[in-house]
Amino acid sequence: MKPVIAITIGDFNGIGPEIVLRSISEPDINAICIPILVGPYDIWQEAANMFMPSANFIQIDDPKLIGTDYTGIPILNIDGYTVKDLSPGRPSRKAGTAAVDAVKMSLSLCQNGYAHAMVTSPVSKESINLAGHTYVGHTDMLMDLTDTEAVTMMMIAGKFRVALVTVHVPIKSVAETITEREFMLKTKTAIDSLKNDFNIIDPRVAVLGLNPHAGESGLLGDEEKEVITPTIKRLAKEGYIVEGPFPADAFFGAKLHHNFDLVMAMYHDQGLIPLKLEGFQFGVNYSSGLPVIRTSPDHGTAYNIVGRGISNLSSMTEAIKLAVAITHNRTAKVK
Amino acid sequence: MKPVIAITIGDFNGIGPEIVLRSISEPDINAICIPILVGPYDIWQEAANMFMPSANFIQIDDPKLIGTDYTGIPILNIDGYTVKDLSPGRPSRKAGTAAVDAVKMSLSLCQNGYAHAMVTSPVSKESINLAGHTYVGHTDMLMDLTDTEAVTMMMIAGKFRVALVTVHVPIKSVAETITEREFMLKTKTAIDSLKNDFNIIDPRVAVLGLNPHAGESGLLGDEEKEVITPTIKRLAKEGYIVEGPFPADAFFGAKLHHNFDLVMAMYHDQGLIPLKLEGFQFGVNYSSGLPVIRTSPDHGTAYNIVGRGISNLSSMTEAIKLAVAITHNRTAKVK
Repeated sequence: MKPVIAITIGDFNGIGPEIVLRSISEPDINAICIPILVGPYDIWQEAANMFMPSANFIQIDDPKLIGTDYTGIPILNIDGYTVKDLSPGRPSRKAGTAAVDAVKMSLSLCQNGYAHAMVTSPVSKESINLAGHTYVGHTDMLMDLTDTEAVTMMMIAGKFRVALVTVHVPIKSVAETITEREFMLKTKTAIDSLKNDFNIIDPRVAVLGLNPHAGESGLLGDEEKEVITPTIKRLAKEGYIVEGPFPADAFFGAKLHHNFDLVMAMYHDQGLIPLKLEGFQFGVNYSSGLPVIRTSPDHGTAYNIVGRGISNLSSMTEAIKLAVAITHNRTAKVK
Repeated sequence: MKPVIAITIGDFNGIGPEIVLRSISEPDINAICIPILVGPYDIWQEAANMFMPSANFIQIDDPKLIGTDYTGIPILNIDGYTVKDLSPGRPSRKAGTAAVDAVKMSLSLCQNGYAHAMVTSPVSKESINLAGHTYVGHTDMLMDLTDTEAVTMMMIAGKFRVALVTVHVPIKSVAETITEREFMLKTKTAIDSLKNDFNIIDPRVAVLGLNPHAGESGLLGDEEKEVITPTIKRLAKEGYIVEGPFPADAFFGAKLHHNFDLVMAMYHDQGLIPLKLEGFQFGVNYSSGLPVIRTSPDHGTAYNIVGRGISNLSSMTEAIKLAVAITHNRTAKVK
C-alpha cells in the first residue's frame, strides 16, 4: 500500500511550489506514495503552468473528502489567495500566513488519519514573522501545535545522521541553553527515534564537545566537565550506547562519524556544516519525537533562484522517500 | 638554495619526535630543505632508535655554531633531559618545559638568521600548564615572544584556506570576543599574508556568519547586523575583496569555498570542521602576521598512538613544504 503524504507549499514566494511539483513528477516518487498538496490552489496552478504543464489537479476544500484513489493530484486548498498575492523571491505577510496554515492543515490530516506523514517545504522566518507568528521554524511550530515537550531535530544524508542539542539559538546563548536535562532529553528522543523510525536495534551515538578541543580538560571551557560528560555517563548507566565528548574538528577529520548511527552536535552549524559538506544537497530534516511523521528538505526558500527551474530536487525527493520509509518502519513495528 | 627549517620537538611524550624523524627521512622533504631539529638530544636519539635507526645526528649546543652544510642531521640540543624524563602518552611538566624552550630557541634561530622558517610539532596544553606557562597554544606563545599585536591563525589544505577570527575561545565567550576592531585586524592580517606569503595578487575572501543562518536578519542573533556586515562594508570600501556574511552550513553545502582564496570563520570548529573533513590529514596550520615564518601540522599530540609508528605524516610533511614555499615566496618578493 502506498502511504499518503501531505506536502505543504512552504513559503510560496520561494522554491517550494516548484520543487514539490517537479519532485512528484519523478517516477520513483510517484511509485512509492500518494501525495496531497496543501496550499492555495491558484498558487499551485500558477507554478504548474511553469513546471508541470500536464498536471491534472483535483481541488479539495474539505479534508473529509480526501481519499486514497485519484485520477489526478489532490490539492487541499487554502482559500483566499490569488496569483496577485505572489511576490516571487521576497518574504511577505501573505506567504507567511499561507505557510503556517499549510502546516496546520497537514498536521491535522496526519492526526486524523487522512495522511500517514507530512513533508514540509521551506519557509521564511521573515514571512512567518510578518504574518504575526513568532515561530523560528517548523520544529517549534509543530511542537507547539502538538503540545510536544521534546523534539530532536535530525539531519540525515544517507547513513550520516546528525541530531542537534540546540537548533535556532544565537551562538552567545548556546552554552547556557545546554543543560543536563535538555541534553538528556534530546539524546533520548533521538535514540528512541533511531529504534522506532529507523529500525536500528542498538543505536551507537557519538557526542561532540561544545568548546574547541572539547574544552581540553577545562582549559577551553567547562561545559564538557560540568554538563556533557556527566550526562553521557548517566546515559551509559541507563544502557544507552553513547560515547564522547569528541573534539568536533578531529572527529570529522578522522571520519569517525562513519562508525556511529548518530552524531549529537551541540549547535546548528557544528552539525550541519559537516552534514551539508559531505551530504551535498541530499540532506533531509526529520523532527524526531513528534507524534506525527514530518520530514523536510534541508535547504531554505532559495529566493534568489525562484522561477528559474534550476533548483536541485535531491533534498525534497529524499525527504519524501524518508517520510515513506518511516511510515513503513513504524507500521512494521505495530504488526 | 635550500631553506634552513628549524623543527621543534613539541611535546616529547606525544608523536612529535616520531613524525619529525619519519618526515625528514622522506626524499621529497630532504630534497627541499635543511632541517635543524630543536629539542633534547637524548630524546631525539631515543626516538631515532625506533624510527630512524640510520640517523647520523650532529649535536649542537650553541646556536652560533649552526651552519648550512652538514654530513648529518643537526640537533640544537636542550640540555638537562634524559630518556628517564619520557612518559609516553601522558602530559608532564618536563615535556611542557622542553616544548616551550624548543619554540623559544627555534624562534631565536629565525630572528637571528640561522633559520629561514620554523615548523612546530604538536604540544599539549596540559603539559605547558604543568610547566607553569599559561599559553593555550603556539600562536599566543609566539605572539607574546615576538610582541606581535595581530596574528591570524590560518589552516590550509591545498587551495582550501580557513582563517579564524577567534581560536581557543570557549563557545560562551565567542560572540563578545568578535569586535569590529578584532575582526578587521584579523581579516587584514590574513589578506596581507595571502598577498605576501602566498603570492595571491587580489585575494577573494568569504566571511561566515556567527549565528545559525548568519543571524537570519537579526532573528537568530544580532552580531551580523551590528558587527560583521558593517565591518565587511568598511573593508570593501578600503578596496579589499570581502563577501558575506554567509550562512556557514549552506556555504559549505554549496561548496562555495572553492570560489574563494580564503574563508574567514568566526570560531574554531566552524572553520576546522569543514577543513579537516575535506582536507583529511593534509591540513597545515600557519600563523599569518608573525615576523617569522611558522607552520605546523593541524593535529595534536596523539598520545594514544605514541611509539607505534602508525601516525600519518601528511600533515607534518605538508607543514614543512609550506614553510619552504613561503620562504621562497617572501624571498622572491624582496628581489
